[in-house]
Amino acid sequence: MTDQELDALSINTIRFLAVDAVEKAKSGHPGTPMGAAPMAYVLWDRFLKHTPTDPHWPDRDRFILSPGHASAMLYALLHLTGYDLPLEELKRFRQWGSKTPGHPEYGLTPGLEMTTGPLGQGFAHGVGMAIAERWLADHYNRPGHQIIDHHTYAIVSDGDLQEGVASEAASLAGTLRLGKLIYLYDDNDISIEGNTDIAFAENVAQRFQAYGWHVIGPIDGMDLANVDSAIRLAQAETGRPTLIICRTIIGFGSPNKAGTASAHGEPLGEEEVRLAKERLGWPYPEPFTVPAEALAHFRLAQERGRRGQEEWEARMDAYRRASPEEAGLLEEDLRRGLPQGWDRDLESLFKAGDKPIATREASGRVMNAIVDKVHAFTGGSADLAPSTKTLLKDHGHYGFEEFCGHNMHFGVREHAMGAIANGMALHGGTIPYAATFLIFSDYMRPPMRLAALMEQRVIYIFTHDSIGMGEDGPTHQPIEQLAGLRAVPNLVVLRPADATETVEAWRVALERRNGPTALILSRQNLPVLDRAALGPASGVQQGGYVLWGATAKPDVILMGTGSEVHIALEAGTLLQKKGINSRVVSLPSWELFDAQSPEYRNSVIPDDVRARVSIEAASTLGWERYVGLDGVAIGLDRFGASAPAAELYRQFNLTAQRVVDEATRLLEVKVK
Amino acid sequence: MTDQELDALSINTIRFLAVDAVEKAKSGHPGTPMGAAPMAYVLWDRFLKHTPTDPHWPDRDRFILSPGHASAMLYALLHLTGYDLPLEELKRFRQWGSKTPGHPEYGLTPGLEMTTGPLGQGFAHGVGMAIAERWLADHYNRPGHQIIDHHTYAIVSDGDLQEGVASEAASLAGTLRLGKLIYLYDDNDISIEGNTDIAFAENVAQRFQAYGWHVIGPIDGMDLANVDSAIRLAQAETGRPTLIICRTIIGFGSPNKAGTASAHGEPLGEEEVRLAKERLGWPYPEPFTVPAEALAHFRLAQERGRRGQEEWEARMDAYRRASPEEAGLLEEDLRRGLPQGWDRDLESLFKAGDKPIATREASGRVMNAIVDKVHAFTGGSADLAPSTKTLLKDHGHYGFEEFCGHNMHFGVREHAMGAIANGMALHGGTIPYAATFLIFSDYMRPPMRLAALMEQRVIYIFTHDSIGMGEDGPTHQPIEQLAGLRAVPNLVVLRPADATETVEAWRVALERRNGPTALILSRQNLPVLDRAALGPASGVQQGGYVLWGATAKPDVILMGTGSEVHIALEAGTLLQKKGINSRVVSLPSWELFDAQSPEYRNSVIPDDVRARVSIEAASTLGWERYVGLDGVAIGLDRFGASAPAAELYRQFNLTAQRVVDEATRLLEVKVK
Repeated sequence: MTDQELDALSINTIRFLAVDAVEKAKSGHPGTPMGAAPMAYVLWDRFLKHTPTDPHWPDRDRFILSPGHASAMLYALLHLTGYDLPLEELKRFRQWGSKTPGHPEYGLTPGLEMTTGPLGQGFAHGVGMAIAERWLADHYNRPGHQIIDHHTYAIVSDGDLQEGVASEAASLAGTLRLGKLIYLYDDNDISIEGNTDIAFAENVAQRFQAYGWHVIGPIDGMDLANVDSAIRLAQAETGRPTLIICRTIIGFGSPNKAGTASAHGEPLGEEEVRLAKERLGWPYPEPFTVPAEALAHFRLAQERGRRGQEEWEARMDAYRRASPEEAGLLEEDLRRGLPQGWDRDLESLFKAGDKPIATREASGRVMNAIVDKVHAFTGGSADLAPSTKTLLKDHGHYGFEEFCGHNMHFGVREHAMGAIANGMALHGGTIPYAATFLIFSDYMRPPMRLAALMEQRVIYIFTHDSIGMGEDGPTHQPIEQLAGLRAVPNLVVLRPADATETVEAWRVALERRNGPTALILSRQNLPVLDRAALGPASGVQQGGYVLWGATAKPDVILMGTGSEVHIALEAGTLLQKKGINSRVVSLPSWELFDAQSPEYRNSVIPDDVRARVSIEAASTLGWERYVGLDGVAIGLDRFGASAPAAELYRQFNLTAQRVVDEATRLLEVKVK
Repeated sequence: MTDQELDALSINTIRFLAVDAVEKAKSGHPGTPMGAAPMAYVLWDRFLKHTPTDPHWPDRDRFILSPGHASAMLYALLHLTGYDLPLEELKRFRQWGSKTPGHPEYGLTPGLEMTTGPLGQGFAHGVGMAIAERWLADHYNRPGHQIIDHHTYAIVSDGDLQEGVASEAASLAGTLRLGKLIYLYDDNDISIEGNTDIAFAENVAQRFQAYGWHVIGPIDGMDLANVDSAIRLAQAETGRPTLIICRTIIGFGSPNKAGTASAHGEPLGEEEVRLAKERLGWPYPEPFTVPAEALAHFRLAQERGRRGQEEWEARMDAYRRASPEEAGLLEEDLRRGLPQGWDRDLESLFKAGDKPIATREASGRVMNAIVDKVHAFTGGSADLAPSTKTLLKDHGHYGFEEFCGHNMHFGVREHAMGAIANGMALHGGTIPYAATFLIFSDYMRPPMRLAALMEQRVIYIFTHDSIGMGEDGPTHQPIEQLAGLRAVPNLVVLRPADATETVEAWRVALERRNGPTALILSRQNLPVLDRAALGPASGVQQGGYVLWGATAKPDVILMGTGSEVHIALEAGTLLQKKGINSRVVSLPSWELFDAQSPEYRNSVIPDDVRARVSIEAASTLGWERYVGLDGVAIGLDRFGASAPAAELYRQFNLTAQRVVDEATRLLEVKVK
């Protein structure tokens, strides 16, 4: 068999594993695998630095399939090159409990670098991976010691390039001159509603040149030599990211569906599969056939990968000897742990009697204390650092004369910021944070969801968390954002009431290894709670705790989060003067509280005390979980307004007197 | 006074009204008004077709201030040109109850075309306005009768151009060759974190050329002759949208702050204001001074506007005579009403005994019935029309050989789609819809929020509404989206249980004039409920109603929405067999139900029946509002999985038997 024949056989093996998997599942996307298999083959066979038998070694190349619907192609590649993904799993494509779900899922399938499916995300996450690579390289590489030195590759689609998040990430990648980012654009002219011309007539090459990218092509994306030399050119260009525009034919080989939208999202059908196999000269009628020559060829990746990894490990040994301190720090960064005693001094930052301080400001001070101990801690804001108070002082600026600076500047690009933070976390070696106003979390929900789904430690710092931000008005005042975030599975939302709770909130965020955390912080100053007279701030770890009120069985329970906890406390004092025993519960995190034992929860909010009032300057949606049908949830189920903050609290009747009135009324009703 | 002197005086009047307003409010953004006042002045003084005394006439030019933080400049222009915005209001900038909030709010201030503030939105909404203009023009203009013929202008900022939504909208605007769209880009090099270079080094001109735009500049954006001739060039180009790149200096005139980030978001300070007035030769120390010559000059806009409007009205009269039928239809489109009997035939679309039908499919049939009666009904999907079933058959394709087609193709651009739909609604003459999978509503939350805030009738069609979509897996299966949407003020969320409820849901959506509606629809087939044996589908109008169970005081109440209503019904039958009286409540819209009288709500969900079970294949967040502390909310508080839909319902235990078990357990507990 000639090399050319072996290449053709290997590519068809990828194609028909994918086609057969879709056919067997009776659902899926055969078109992209059939068109993109050649470029994927060239990349994986001739360039990709990876070790199928050890998918996690740090300096491997990263590969992302941004059009996640083409998952069957990726599963074929993983199986063929020898990852722990038996053929049996490809036969269980899209079935319950398989390792081959409809879209690639990180953590489920070995060798997968991220979950893809929502378009644009793979593109933007890859930029995050390349940023992390550059950050680590600039920190740790020394002359003669290239310890971190790998590429980030992706296949991206028409749909990816239409999504705004890809535009944002591409512009930033160009600004940052990420020379090790290489994307192959599968330009097949077809979208679900038909030819891409109906909605996507732009000049993609020119657009990416404008972003500062190195653009190659359009080339014939199904010609191996073309793809090969394009990737070589891309590797040679180290000062700019590269986009290789690969013209392909969706559903290539399918006589009746190639080049049409109908090849995209449904099985070809038995007869058409037969015809496609015939057309492409595939002599195996039996589905899921893997010719031995092809398999042997693909499996060379194992040995190649082992060799590459061994070389790297030798280099790492030399580096350890030459720069033991840096090597130790690098290994600590990569370990995803936290150094012992990292949080030892945080408590001492704030004490009762300090001047009132906004929780955003308190958070900024905590962050600066953290970065002194936790080197991997790095991130930035979407052009709001002076307002979110997220600048890490004296820790440099990434991309601004250096690339080892801890302060990233994402520009006014919340969506890409979220995706990039995920990419950084997935890459490893960094604990990323991303900051903006809480209202603009709306711009970045898709990557936040992916962080939760992929169980990544990404920390969101959302400031200006309510009408307490004042004059900027309803466009900037969050109402529904808290409820919207609380509904996301595996996202912990924390809204601390003061500086001391802010310390605890940060502790939760850093210690949480299997999911993202959102810190919800005030713009306005808040008193530092006097813990001598109140429950300890460590109660934040349980999500909710008794803050005030000694009585074992109070007449009424008052609850709140963040700035409104202070209103509840004031109401508690007013009620006391009226001879009513109340308990004030601070409930900074519903997710953490709901995860406690029933006993603990009952000790904080006793089931038999049904007179309950909650207060939070936000949508009341969900508060009935705590106040029930017989309690009252005070909040704001309308949009805010532009005025000074204190005026808004008065006008919207978010006051201690209101809490007192509602509590009193509840107790009167009960008396009847 | 020479013309030049009058121009300079007028521009300084704008500048210092804005500066003084910020100063008096002690908060706001003086920098952009100081730099952008010249371009705004040229546009408003020499080009903008508008009537300050009648802000709503249909063929006026639209003007958008996309960087909404520069609101004080817009208020100055509105006041000076003679809109109903007294100087007193500028003195109450950012105060409770004023017409001059921190960011422009549509409906509050006469002459404002939209609410801006969240960056990128103004840019993208303007594209929607230009799309609506072109749609109406292509429908109604006849040779010699140019009835719809106006421009859409915007000032856009660095921040706007960094946001992905602007990229999406720009690419589509280029594809659609929207020649009457003219944007002035205030290119001032400054962002909040410093010089834009740190995050935004792209070549904006080249990028917009790649989108198919006509790009002018960079020009000196503070030179009136330059701006004037650029706008003339832009008007002359009718086949492409135009971006005029205007170099300006943020905070121009402020000796110590011009050209720096500190001019952006805070008052200049008393002394710096004094120095700026001195530097710009403004001889009036008194704040809010409007020189009589400047005012007289600005107020010419009133007379000019009246004349333009009268000319248009004369043309409209001629058109009415020449094409009475078209004129009638145009006026109906513009009236925002609905033709009598528009919904007469909808009921007959579906009846008990029909084959089970997915609510997305039912919705598609309803839509096709609607467009036959309601001409203004137009929209599209983000490249998913075949799946969302939103194609309006035989109603043409916008931008594809014609511009009067009812089917828009937004491309894979959910965010821009949402913004464009808002722009179309704001423009008037259209009732827009926007369709995608429910999961991708995450990509378009910012414009959905603006639709709710601006009280616009925009209809969202969100299909594939749960794990019922099956094999595509957790990236595509909504969990938290329903809760997230329900939390948005003034957004009505409707999840119909079958085809007959879908008809009613559409009725609600069309009849609702003061806010957006989201229809949440199934991918999977659902039986058509037999209304002879059940409560009438018209109960959807109340948001919730008794579907089944005659007993006045049931033992247990079962509730659900959408596809899970059928599970509740099955459970009701099973309970009946066990001798337990249950009531099944269909609760398609919480917002509508919560707006009913306490009496009605109590008649559906009696307060004294506390054994309650809800079922919905989504996050349970919020269901406690209906089931209380003593009931059970069955749902899915984790991410989904990839498998056939029926398998998922079984695996996640979303079954009638589960409902029966929970109901039985509740009743047993009660007995104790």
